[in-house]
Amino acid sequence: MTKTEKTNKKIKATPEPTLRRLPRYLHLLKFLRETGDKSVSSTYIAKELGFDPTQVRKDIEYTGIVGRPKTGFNIVELISSIEEFLNWKNITDAFLVGTGSLGTAMLGYGRFKDYGLNFVAAFDNNEMKIGKTIHETPVLSMEKLVDLAKRMHINIGVITVPAFAAQHSADLLIEGGIRAIWNFAPIHLKVPEGVLVENAQLTQSLAVLTHKLADAISKD
Amino acid sequence: MTKTEKTNKKIKATPEPTLRRLPRYLHLLKFLRETGDKSVSSTYIAKELGFDPTQVRKDIEYTGIVGRPKTGFNIVELISSIEEFLNWKNITDAFLVGTGSLGTAMLGYGRFKDYGLNFVAAFDNNEMKIGKTIHETPVLSMEKLVDLAKRMHINIGVITVPAFAAQHSADLLIEGGIRAIWNFAPIHLKVPEGVLVENAQLTQSLAVLTHKLADAISKD
Repeated sequence: MTKTEKTNKKIKATPEPTLRRLPRYLHLLKFLRETGDKSVSSTYIAKELGFDPTQVRKDIEYTGIVGRPKTGFNIVELISSIEEFLNWKNITDAFLVGTGSLGTAMLGYGRFKDYGLNFVAAFDNNEMKIGKTIHETPVLSMEKLVDLAKRMHINIGVITVPAFAAQHSADLLIEGGIRAIWNFAPIHLKVPEGVLVENAQLTQSLAVLTHKLADAISKD
Repeated sequence: MTKTEKTNKKIKATPEPTLRRLPRYLHLLKFLRETGDKSVSSTYIAKELGFDPTQVRKDIEYTGIVGRPKTGFNIVELISSIEEFLNWKNITDAFLVGTGSLGTAMLGYGRFKDYGLNFVAAFDNNEMKIGKTIHETPVLSMEKLVDLAKRMHINIGVITVPAFAAQHSADLLIEGGIRAIWNFAPIHLKVPEGVLVENAQLTQSLAVLTHKLADAISKD
């Protein structure tokens, strides 16, 4: 095996389920850190969160940290390793499109900066909102989106408009050079190759809950 | 194989990734229905959403519908089959705890009824909010939660309070007999066996996006 082949093998993409579990480990780890714990094992994390221990160990390995026999992981180092892996230590500027109730809630959630997301501007076509600020973020006209995104080299766009307006919002973001879209609208966006789309559709999570509940009730 | 064994095999739990994909099929199917299409193949759905065709076919099979050779699925029947499977045709009454910006956004999202969720009451301990209504849902004192949940036989509780208050909210909901919790707080809830918890943590979705974006940028 040549050196290049080895490198290629090493950088294979992390599975999405792993990426989705890592923030749950982070929440637990930060809680443990606050209670004064210094180290933790993958077995303990697995037990607390109801996951398989082997899976937890593999997930953590993706971030590149190595546990110590007997003592497990140093909690502060493990938090740092996961945050670095998710790129949450670098602040990325983002645009938000659509300042309805969900968009407003997002702008008001101060902790997005802990996850590396900084809303520098929000966009809307509602004349009543343009020129104002929502939770300290300025609301600008949609007409300014493309130019500003280009000038500010914005990489992330968050879409919180209703479904009918979502594709148009995505098109503008992409025209402005945005590379990753976090889509909260309940539609499938069409984007050119190379643009990342993550659908944060609440209904996906709700589907799991309502199906399982119906299942449980039917067994009563 | 006895008859019982056969039945047991048939009702094995649907995988969660399948449950999470079904709402995405629904969004596409409803869009196709609006554009006047009558039938659709699993291959077409797979291509539109960027999924594997075999996976889409298997997911749909879980809902119990059978496609026809050549024409595929009748769109109206397929929508109905998925909605029934997710129990979105029955309206389930739900309590919401925490009327901050996210809770308010949830109460204002009129389309939850399309997903079988009906918010009959919201709870908060903020005196300024108690006794008022938010998007037509009454806001009541937390002190009334347990009694009301019992009397109204509420099955679903949605938690939109800050992390520090989430476990207490969950405890009250469970004391009130709630069987399923949709948790938006970024903590791991401890619940007795038999109580379902679905964590709708936005950070899980964000983790996928920020990691992939950092990965893409590093390859530039």
